[in-house]
Amino acid sequence: MRKQPVKVAIWGFGAMGSGMARMLLAKKGFEIVGVCDRNPAIVGKKMREVLGLPAVADDIRILPDIDSVVGDRSCDVCLLATDSFTHKAFPKIRWLLERRVNVISTAEEMTYPEANQPDLATQMDAIAKANGVTVLGTGINPGMMMDLLVIMMTGVMADVEKIRVSRVNSLSPFGETVMSEQGVGLSLEEYAQKKAKGEIAGHVGFRESVEMMSKALGLGIDRFEQQMDPIITAVDRKSPYGFAKAGHVTGIDMRSQGYVGSELKIEMSHPQQIEPQLGGVRTGDYIDITGQPPVHLAITPEIDGGIGTIAVCVNMIPHVINARPGLKTMIDLPVPRAILGDVRAMIEEDVR
Amino acid sequence: MRKQPVKVAIWGFGAMGSGMARMLLAKKGFEIVGVCDRNPAIVGKKMREVLGLPAVADDIRILPDIDSVVGDRSCDVCLLATDSFTHKAFPKIRWLLERRVNVISTAEEMTYPEANQPDLATQMDAIAKANGVTVLGTGINPGMMMDLLVIMMTGVMADVEKIRVSRVNSLSPFGETVMSEQGVGLSLEEYAQKKAKGEIAGHVGFRESVEMMSKALGLGIDRFEQQMDPIITAVDRKSPYGFAKAGHVTGIDMRSQGYVGSELKIEMSHPQQIEPQLGGVRTGDYIDITGQPPVHLAITPEIDGGIGTIAVCVNMIPHVINARPGLKTMIDLPVPRAILGDVRAMIEEDVR
Repeated sequence: MRKQPVKVAIWGFGAMGSGMARMLLAKKGFEIVGVCDRNPAIVGKKMREVLGLPAVADDIRILPDIDSVVGDRSCDVCLLATDSFTHKAFPKIRWLLERRVNVISTAEEMTYPEANQPDLATQMDAIAKANGVTVLGTGINPGMMMDLLVIMMTGVMADVEKIRVSRVNSLSPFGETVMSEQGVGLSLEEYAQKKAKGEIAGHVGFRESVEMMSKALGLGIDRFEQQMDPIITAVDRKSPYGFAKAGHVTGIDMRSQGYVGSELKIEMSHPQQIEPQLGGVRTGDYIDITGQPPVHLAITPEIDGGIGTIAVCVNMIPHVINARPGLKTMIDLPVPRAILGDVRAMIEEDVR
Repeated sequence: MRKQPVKVAIWGFGAMGSGMARMLLAKKGFEIVGVCDRNPAIVGKKMREVLGLPAVADDIRILPDIDSVVGDRSCDVCLLATDSFTHKAFPKIRWLLERRVNVISTAEEMTYPEANQPDLATQMDAIAKANGVTVLGTGINPGMMMDLLVIMMTGVMADVEKIRVSRVNSLSPFGETVMSEQGVGLSLEEYAQKKAKGEIAGHVGFRESVEMMSKALGLGIDRFEQQMDPIITAVDRKSPYGFAKAGHVTGIDMRSQGYVGSELKIEMSHPQQIEPQLGGVRTGDYIDITGQPPVHLAITPEIDGGIGTIAVCVNMIPHVINARPGLKTMIDLPVPRAILGDVRAMIEEDVR
């Protein structure tokens, strides 16, 4: 087994990045060698202080400049938790790859960058290969629940006719930013205005999920569509950070379709709202695949999106270190898994 | 994309092998180059005739000797569907690997041969590497439903406390051999006698599943137990090939446990019976993992074991061809997936 710890840097110390730090500190064989974030509230502070953990002598400080955090081959991997879109994450990813550091990005578009940024995808693949390292984008969705798990389930099938996948989750645990981005509490008129201004975020990642499935299965999807609609509540709903009066917006229903010619092959549905039980909605991850044999899968309640994304990113570290160099997606790498023992036992020593 | 077809030989043309042939013939980019079976009822016959398919001019004949079917590098992969136990499959696997042919075995023990045959596992790994090819064992169970899918679901988890996995299936579709092996219709006394003589098969593969999960997660399971008990029906049950009077055996309940020290970490349950609905049993694949976040997954009804095994073996062909040489298990390779397009698009040309 490898002797030296698996060295990790974290770029972006919000809910995701700090959650990853907490998870890494609870595991055997990892060392967090640096944290980069520009948020003035935490810059210069010690990492454990920010995490609310007991102080240790050799704790690291959160620094605002990545140059002070990552140098050439100074760590095995950098967890990049700063962006949702590939074009925003790209300069950071390039910088890291050129320092011969593997990268795992939480950017939704990075789970399958080919879908929205084929040119950047080609560039990242070339830069990663030139530097002998690997870059992967992942998360709970896109990355797992509405794509990789579907792909995995088709592995038991001789033929697939149609895929329906649905993730029904509650927004109640989320804070004010999410309430605003998802339009919670707005009247229909206010919603229409905000949507027209592009201020309603909805879910980023349907195109990535659909194209990842199409590529993995050889499905040949040639047309992609998506819709975004407000979910109107019939009763008042209240969550810690949100309130929607009866008749107002309680969340967003997003749907998407992938076609081969005129044939609908993939149907995605992702309604998110506060207090879904007040609308008679049972949260969960649901996969229904018609074909031979048919598959009807339900995970209830849904896999928690916050902890889930944190866990997937950390759990993929050994696979990314072991991978051949280049841009990888979840369909290229071995099945994700929890890390319960010493992570160093999962590193193949002979591959790099 | 690779120009020549992916060439496949099939060794063992029973329900599994013939089902794989049927599946391969329905896909693009495969060619079945040979079939080996010793069953006098089919030896010398043309493959499509045995499959009940329309005749074609260049059809192949089923031959009894593997020497006439496979030669040095004469195909990309051989699907070996002849045995349940590693020590029985081993001489065939060695023979194939030495002809520089990749191997996918349906033998239950081969899904994780390290568990029951560590010496043979080491030998197979060395022979495969020496010949630049790969050997994999897989199937629906062990191989997918009670191990790989569990491992995949832990990928969204920051911590795992305990795993409970259950596969509840119907034996009604199966024929006379299975009825006899599973004791269907016996009195309790007859069951006890047959069990004492080792004539009750039950499920082969719990130890393989438990050790595969332990290895993948770094769980450190150090004690394995399993139990086999008859399922007694309260009412008469009748299936096409089976009949169990009230008070008689209608199937077998198998259970297994994996411990770390005195702590129960993995609990497996696999009751198989005819007409389960008459006992108030809902068939399905169920996974419950306590930890952070918890996972509660249900697939209802259960994934069909026959088609499922056929599909997994065929679907893993591209992954096995693309793999680095050696003995592989499902945890080493990318996520299984259906093959809906031309399989040649899934072959990485630069790796061998």
